Amino acid sequence: MAVQLAPLGRLLPIAGLQLGTAGAGIKHTNRDDVVLIHLTSEQASCAAVFTRNAFCAAPVVLAKQHLASTAARYCLINSGNANAGTGAAGLQAAQATCQAVAELHGGSAEAVLPFSTGVIGQALPVEKIRTALPNAIQALSEDNWTAAAKAIMTTDTQPKGFSRQVEVQGQTLTVTGISKGAGMIRPDMATMLAFIGTDAAVPSELLQRCLAQAMDVSFNRISVDGDTSTNDACVLMASGQGAVQISNEQDPAWTVLCETVTEVCQALAQAIVRDGEGATKFITIAVEGAANREECLAVAYTIAHSPLVKTAFFASDANWGRILAAVGRAGLNNLVLEDVQIDLNEVNIVRQGGVSPEYTEAQGQRVMQETDITIRVQLGRGEVSDQVWTCDLSHEYVSINADYRT
Amino acid sequence: MAVQLAPLGRLLPIAGLQLGTAGAGIKHTNRDDVVLIHLTSEQASCAAVFTRNAFCAAPVVLAKQHLASTAARYCLINSGNANAGTGAAGLQAAQATCQAVAELHGGSAEAVLPFSTGVIGQALPVEKIRTALPNAIQALSEDNWTAAAKAIMTTDTQPKGFSRQVEVQGQTLTVTGISKGAGMIRPDMATMLAFIGTDAAVPSELLQRCLAQAMDVSFNRISVDGDTSTNDACVLMASGQGAVQISNEQDPAWTVLCETVTEVCQALAQAIVRDGEGATKFITIAVEGAANREECLAVAYTIAHSPLVKTAFFASDANWGRILAAVGRAGLNNLVLEDVQIDLNEVNIVRQGGVSPEYTEAQGQRVMQETDITIRVQLGRGEVSDQVWTCDLSHEYVSINADYRT
Repeated sequence: MAVQLAPLGRLLPIAGLQLGTAGAGIKHTNRDDVVLIHLTSEQASCAAVFTRNAFCAAPVVLAKQHLASTAARYCLINSGNANAGTGAAGLQAAQATCQAVAELHGGSAEAVLPFSTGVIGQALPVEKIRTALPNAIQALSEDNWTAAAKAIMTTDTQPKGFSRQVEVQGQTLTVTGISKGAGMIRPDMATMLAFIGTDAAVPSELLQRCLAQAMDVSFNRISVDGDTSTNDACVLMASGQGAVQISNEQDPAWTVLCETVTEVCQALAQAIVRDGEGATKFITIAVEGAANREECLAVAYTIAHSPLVKTAFFASDANWGRILAAVGRAGLNNLVLEDVQIDLNEVNIVRQGGVSPEYTEAQGQRVMQETDITIRVQLGRGEVSDQVWTCDLSHEYVSINADYRT
Repeated sequence: MAVQLAPLGRLLPIAGLQLGTAGAGIKHTNRDDVVLIHLTSEQASCAAVFTRNAFCAAPVVLAKQHLASTAARYCLINSGNANAGTGAAGLQAAQATCQAVAELHGGSAEAVLPFSTGVIGQALPVEKIRTALPNAIQALSEDNWTAAAKAIMTTDTQPKGFSRQVEVQGQTLTVTGISKGAGMIRPDMATMLAFIGTDAAVPSELLQRCLAQAMDVSFNRISVDGDTSTNDACVLMASGQGAVQISNEQDPAWTVLCETVTEVCQALAQAIVRDGEGATKFITIAVEGAANREECLAVAYTIAHSPLVKTAFFASDANWGRILAAVGRAGLNNLVLEDVQIDLNEVNIVRQGGVSPEYTEAQGQRVMQETDITIRVQLGRGEVSDQVWTCDLSHEYVSINADYRT
């Protein structure tokens, strides 16, 4: 029951990047739940951003080690089991799956980055994954993004993927990405995974900078402290098999690459919110007139995490008092109530410390019929603005999360 | 559907403190919704703690001003309307109700502390309150705490009140208090009100210190940043009409007073959690082995505010992975996963970074059948411990908060 989430469009293949999926029966037996991604060329580079949670899941620990030690050539992803909170045995299990890829398809285990998403605290079924791997290898193909987008889903109701193709100085640059999420209130508590590929040739240091920039205005704007679940990860792979070659930041193609990757990341991040567990409304919280970025985000996230605001939106109730109360407890020093203005879409609802004189309940009700709603908060303290995306809190959310393990 | 919340017992009268209730029809017509509390003696003193929300409701602004300007003799409380987000008109409305008390019962308007709880952003119906006041005055009686506990309720399902009587050097000291709350996830978003009386004679400066100490281990342990809704307030009144006279902190009765007030405040605060909106479980989060108090509370509140933890408890699912993930994103530097231990009541569930070898799902299921559950988190970093109280997140919570205004 995703909120205006468009069906998956055509996901463009990335030359030099193959994907294969297979069913290992980890949690469900009637679907693919293992994905292998293979960067075929020596020229390829790989960048990644991982969760900031103090308790990284075993695959995150290992993926970081592997990324630091050698050039990554594979991503191995499974859904259905997060391999988190599994201690030393979990690390060995993740290592065993990387080793299996090396044995079955060549290269070293260190060239494999492992990713897991699903239930926390249960042993990873290594044998099931090992058994499924030959099928995933058999299926490796550049035109297999859609199957991969489906195989990484957990509580997602729709697969998520986007492609963008642009021309840079007469050359074609392609970016394709897939993501999964669906944790609603704070994506930092569900596992968010995203895998993005481009056919450009980019040195890994530059690629990492490109990913960091894109994260900051996409996945990190739907989450409280950046990525802080035990398993969150976002990977950007550059196959180097396309026509666009970037060697430094002065390269005209650099800016285009960053913009295109950002665009794909924002689309993937917003898709996660639109498919939030039980979501019925897609809410943009735009904070303007702040003295600095910290203020912006403090206000935006306090609203975004307020269960009272979220349940009011679920009820299509323009309960601006709850929004105002959230602004008030965001921790800003010397906040002046009279300077605060709150709009819902085009309707001004709070001004000078109280309800706007022109506001009518009918206006509020009309706005609340929309599925995409922007809460605009003007603080009147400065020039900085920023935005985050969230969704409402419904009965369905409670049902999904109360039943997840059963 | 409160969680093991005992029915209201006998609330002992406090000599020199009278309460009267009346029905003003503010939100409902079939119940009392106005309370007047009168400190009859010149000897009385009054202390109060208010919300830290930057946007104080009008009655909070006025109560602070009045408390600073003169000796308080009255509390005027209404439920059904919070008089918050109502701008200058709200302040005038609150002022008018104080004035009405002064006109009808003597004294100055400044001697009246106003309190409101209920819907935010609607004009306070001053005339309805003024009309009801003579009935509340008529009803003034020392033995009227129960009626007052009922009249201040909003989404509470049960009235909340406690009395304690102790002997100090052969003299009797009595403390009686009432509270209302019922906001579940963060009490800082609902209005919490508490009114506590004692018959001891206490200088107001000492009384304020006594209240601050009690707050810190009661109401401030069920809330994220102390009191941060727009209307939260806790008032401690000392009538001075009992036998116990306290003049300084060396007085042996001082410690007894502080302990007794603390005991009543904890009972009132825990009652608010037990009557949390939609609550089916009462959860104590005890964090031990922290380096300092900030760490303790960061971990405890991160768990307490996790919708994933709370929905798992609603489902009676011992999903310790969600608890572990919450500990990991609480922001503690250099947290060592292997040092963390998590118990549910007497069952050890996490040890050395993973599930305890002795733990069985059957044990977890057995603990989850209880309605009172303690999550004990041992961090292994130091000697400091602290605890907070919370409840689970149910369908009923969503229903209550999605329907509140309708």
